Amino acid sequence: MLIVMKHNASTDHIDRVVDVIRDMGYDARPIPGGQRTAVGLIGNDGRVDSARIEGLDGVLEVIPVTQPYKQVSREWKEDDTIIRLDNGTRIGGTDVVLMAGPCAVESEEQIVGIAEVLRDQGATILRGGAFKPRTSPYSFQGLGKEGLELLARAREATGMAVVTEAIDPDGVDLVAEYADIVQVGARNMQNYPLLRRVGRAGKPVLLKRGMSATIDELLLAAEYILAEGNGDVILCERGVRGFDNHTRNILDLTAIPVIRALSHLPIIADPSHGTGIRSKVIPMARAAVAAGADGLMVEVHPDPPRALSDGAQSLYPQQFEELMGQIRVIARAIGRDLAAPLTSAGVV
Amino acid sequence: MLIVMKHNASTDHIDRVVDVIRDMGYDARPIPGGQRTAVGLIGNDGRVDSARIEGLDGVLEVIPVTQPYKQVSREWKEDDTIIRLDNGTRIGGTDVVLMAGPCAVESEEQIVGIAEVLRDQGATILRGGAFKPRTSPYSFQGLGKEGLELLARAREATGMAVVTEAIDPDGVDLVAEYADIVQVGARNMQNYPLLRRVGRAGKPVLLKRGMSATIDELLLAAEYILAEGNGDVILCERGVRGFDNHTRNILDLTAIPVIRALSHLPIIADPSHGTGIRSKVIPMARAAVAAGADGLMVEVHPDPPRALSDGAQSLYPQQFEELMGQIRVIARAIGRDLAAPLTSAGVV
Amino acid sequence: MLIVMKHNASTDHIDRVVDVIRDMGYDARPIPGGQRTAVGLIGNDGRVDSARIEGLDGVLEVIPVTQPYKQVSREWKEDDTIIRLDNGTRIGGTDVVLMAGPCAVESEEQIVGIAEVLRDQGATILRGGAFKPRTSPYSFQGLGKEGLELLARAREATGMAVVTEAIDPDGVDLVAEYADIVQVGARNMQNYPLLRRVGRAGKPVLLKRGMSATIDELLLAAEYILAEGNGDVILCERGVRGFDNHTRNILDLTAIPVIRALSHLPIIADPSHGTGIRSKVIPMARAAVAAGADGLMVEVHPDPPRALSDGAQSLYPQQFEELMGQIRVIARAIGRDLAAPLTSAGVV
Amino acid sequence: MLIVMKHNASTDHIDRVVDVIRDMGYDARPIPGGQRTAVGLIGNDGRVDSARIEGLDGVLEVIPVTQPYKQVSREWKEDDTIIRLDNGTRIGGTDVVLMAGPCAVESEEQIVGIAEVLRDQGATILRGGAFKPRTSPYSFQGLGKEGLELLARAREATGMAVVTEAIDPDGVDLVAEYADIVQVGARNMQNYPLLRRVGRAGKPVLLKRGMSATIDELLLAAEYILAEGNGDVILCERGVRGFDNHTRNILDLTAIPVIRALSHLPIIADPSHGTGIRSKVIPMARAAVAAGADGLMVEVHPDPPRALSDGAQSLYPQQFEELMGQIRVIARAIGRDLAAPLTSAGVV
Repeated sequence: MLIVMKHNASTDHIDRVVDVIRDMGYDARPIPGGQRTAVGLIGNDGRVDSARIEGLDGVLEVIPVTQPYKQVSREWKEDDTIIRLDNGTRIGGTDVVLMAGPCAVESEEQIVGIAEVLRDQGATILRGGAFKPRTSPYSFQGLGKEGLELLARAREATGMAVVTEAIDPDGVDLVAEYADIVQVGARNMQNYPLLRRVGRAGKPVLLKRGMSATIDELLLAAEYILAEGNGDVILCERGVRGFDNHTRNILDLTAIPVIRALSHLPIIADPSHGTGIRSKVIPMARAAVAAGADGLMVEVHPDPPRALSDGAQSLYPQQFEELMGQIRVIARAIGRDLAAPLTSAGVV
Repeated sequence: MLIVMKHNASTDHIDRVVDVIRDMGYDARPIPGGQRTAVGLIGNDGRVDSARIEGLDGVLEVIPVTQPYKQVSREWKEDDTIIRLDNGTRIGGTDVVLMAGPCAVESEEQIVGIAEVLRDQGATILRGGAFKPRTSPYSFQGLGKEGLELLARAREATGMAVVTEAIDPDGVDLVAEYADIVQVGARNMQNYPLLRRVGRAGKPVLLKRGMSATIDELLLAAEYILAEGNGDVILCERGVRGFDNHTRNILDLTAIPVIRALSHLPIIADPSHGTGIRSKVIPMARAAVAAGADGLMVEVHPDPPRALSDGAQSLYPQQFEELMGQIRVIARAIGRDLAAPLTSAGVV
Repeated sequence: MLIVMKHNASTDHIDRVVDVIRDMGYDARPIPGGQRTAVGLIGNDGRVDSARIEGLDGVLEVIPVTQPYKQVSREWKEDDTIIRLDNGTRIGGTDVVLMAGPCAVESEEQIVGIAEVLRDQGATILRGGAFKPRTSPYSFQGLGKEGLELLARAREATGMAVVTEAIDPDGVDLVAEYADIVQVGARNMQNYPLLRRVGRAGKPVLLKRGMSATIDELLLAAEYILAEGNGDVILCERGVRGFDNHTRNILDLTAIPVIRALSHLPIIADPSHGTGIRSKVIPMARAAVAAGADGLMVEVHPDPPRALSDGAQSLYPQQFEELMGQIRVIARAIGRDLAAPLTSAGVV
Repeated sequence: MLIVMKHNASTDHIDRVVDVIRDMGYDARPIPGGQRTAVGLIGNDGRVDSARIEGLDGVLEVIPVTQPYKQVSREWKEDDTIIRLDNGTRIGGTDVVLMAGPCAVESEEQIVGIAEVLRDQGATILRGGAFKPRTSPYSFQGLGKEGLELLARAREATGMAVVTEAIDPDGVDLVAEYADIVQVGARNMQNYPLLRRVGRAGKPVLLKRGMSATIDELLLAAEYILAEGNGDVILCERGVRGFDNHTRNILDLTAIPVIRALSHLPIIADPSHGTGIRSKVIPMARAAVAAGADGLMVEVHPDPPRALSDGAQSLYPQQFEELMGQIRVIARAIGRDLAAPLTSAGVV
């Protein structure tokens, strides 16, 4: 951490900064410069609260040098984290993994039917919401436990793994009982009691980036999960808040190579929520793979205009098939490949 | 709701939109124009899911005309909501109310000491965190239940009402037992299980605007609380995510007059989190009152450089006193006044 | 245009809106609804100033239905605009075009040398700044006219077309004399006198999206050029202002499919400015092609660490070669191809 | 400048950084730390191009310590700049100055009429656009030179000073001939040829913050003007691009105290463009004064619904009078006062 002093800071101001740093248990090293002095804080273990120093007289700015996160960083663990699911899918290596399915589980016919189609098209993980966090209290909120049971039935029928969302700490165990991957949604990225609970749930976690979360905040949210002993975290870029009304969000694909450099955790993209518009999902899904995403989460519905939620951004099944063909070529162009499709032997 | 068709939409496309609208139980009225046709959806009760229509062929755009929220709107309730606390403080009328105190409760000496000072300076509500949601898992997370007990002791000693945060649904009842106002923090603005629970907790709720929440999203979050039967909600502008590094957030004061026009709920401002820098708190606190805020939430600490959290944005007590003098004049300039200070008779 | 009235708007308010619309020369059609009345303005030719209506009593909101731009829209011209340069390069059809070169022209050796390398690698358009708009007045501002002459020499030596920036109306003719494409930079996207002048310069124009311009604003800026009679405009997504400090901007690739739907003009991406970091340029360049960009503008420098500007985001020549290999495959995966490389016969 | 090395940077990497810094003519000082080494660049005169270092191997991040601007900073000049106009108005200092008038000059009757009203209400500077930069080429673009002449006539009639915008370098001299203050609009904040020209025009300059300009970028734009020898620059906060549709922009009032700390230049606010809605102008104008603005620029039109531009955000004259009464009290509450009104003796 570097404490930059104002150009007119007095010796007393500088001494006071040095004293406070030492009082906090760290070493301080003043660095005089042409225009101003800076003070280096040496030995920062990531726990220094800069606020205590920022408020001191004569301090212009406090600049963090140490990254605020630890276990999620590549400096902590050099090699890519690879998460292995029971159905053989590996997330995080050279494979590009497809998670697909409807926004919400609506009925057995809907979820099992679409799962069979998607499995045949090459997806290995089924998405579908049982508990839906909705902006309006008057919108459809999901089937709840019944939705989880239907997802389990779809898994039995197809061999696909299941990813679905938990929306409060109390519900985590129930979701973890049915799901192969527990999802934490964008609105809950900084719901710390929820993060701690999924950190102890014994299942991989899909953590979506918050609406306007910085990359550091996303990594710190993941750190909450790792700090509870769960290293199987998949990060997900799903668009950040922007100012243009033509799309729901700005899908920040640059976050993919940025995160790959900073962290060993796998990072996927959700072009469905990232754009909010069906016709933009396919180009942005391709772009995400080209940018190096470890996978995609895509909404596909057997009959989008009749979907109970997010119909406007759900692909038709035949569009998903077309997408699979394109991204297979793109993945190979950058030395990767789509995850192997499930064989019937893979079906439980 | 207005469905704008593409300029080359066919009659079939338009008919299909009309059919879907009628199938949803509403009336449809095509409006031919110079360049394109639009279709009005008549009778929207706020429950129409536009996604179902957005994805139809020939549809260019779906424009909501009805506001998505109901009970929070001025159209639902014309008169300002006024919330009355046991110690006589009224939030929402012509009074400008001061909530002040440290970021976190640290010790009995700290919280009772600062409460006495603030009460004498004219604040009537004491803020202080017992459960702290922190970006890093390695930061101080608050004293928990002990913090709540210390807040209660400060209330006994001073007569101030207490506002403090609940961070998960399970913790709401405990917080509500000790607090006069239960706070929902910015990170939890869309934590719907938490919103529902505070909606049933029988205490007024302070709801902070999320980091990048639109005003409509804030009002919809409040709607969750009102939908549970709790109409005593205080909204709080605390800064939205911006792109400039000189301040932590952009304090969006225009939200104050905007919300006053849209909703009957009181709206206050938090210039401490809104700026993140002590020297900017006073000017922005004054500005918030000038913009029409119903109150302020300000961090004040007896010894900011030694605060366990947010020291850099906490005022010294003497700064708070100076601020009180200035905002009293500003409040009167716009036909309002500071809430009457607590008399010793007001002390329990 | 739809004028949404407040729920309590009186008949007089509605009549007044109708009168004002008719006074402006358009037709007005009131549309009564469940909660409120809306008034449709019929016959909007894109010249209606909504401000005049927004301020009327009883008006809640004015919603534009007609797009504010005309000649740039697909509704005006269905087929893709294809721009043909003298060296045979076509921008806007199925080809994916590569514009590459250093941020700034620094010397004859530098610009001719890199042009030869890039031509051999398959780029057909040479970029290089002669007039550089710099945030600080103390930064290198370009070689000016001498830079233009050096670019012309590089064109003679290689057959590449030249794109370079004009920064004020007076300089347009000079730049147009030397360049095959005149660039308008992001900071000047709404510099209307400049737009008008390049609209009359008789050369194709590359128009970069402003730092926080909406897509509609970008299209309206292009409209200024088309309104002067110049239809050869290439749009360029180069990143918008975001809130994360890990990258200089957020490269908004979704703008590519959005613009392709709205406009017939070609749209390319600049991943160098869009990310600001060399190691992110290649993944984002691939992503842009996968998203459907008609071309790329990429900074390549023979010795990036010694570049006079933007060295940190410039590729090494061998990196550019690797990129070409990858995007060739990606372009073909989506039914396109890289523009044919220049043969020696193509050299003037 | 501090160069932070990656934790696994080799000694060679560090040596290379040191060499490059010395090669650039500065001194380098390595600072070993617990997790990583940083290298301090000593003697930065504000001209260091960090890009050259950012791209070196082993470099994690380059952190500027020296501010990039010079003459605009308080470190360069401690005392507030006070700008004196011919009619006695002083901008800077303790006065709060009112610039008011219509968005655009429309006719002699309009501009002289409103000037007389505003002068009597206490404004001392008349605003009014003669050259209007408009987002659409089809909108009213101003009366041009005739508008300047009408402004001069209004000055003769009332004694008010005149502020009006120049939109290209060639037009600066003409505008400067008629205006007391030459305005550079938000869209042109980084139009460097224009900034240089107004820097040599011999008149004070009002420089508006760009749509999404950081505070540092605003100060650097002002630096362009000061670098040409013109120190009379007034900065203007007029709202930055936000994500909420209820207002046109987010008026970033915190920029006012931030800029007052960083720079000696006066800073005013434009709540008309900052909000875009008449009913929000008055509260935000009050808030700006409370935040410490040195003045306001407010749009007032004799008949807003018939204004040729920006009618929806223009105040009625009687609203302006009410505002004057309120801000007079607020100014005094913080130790300032409104600028003295013009006496008839002040009239030329």
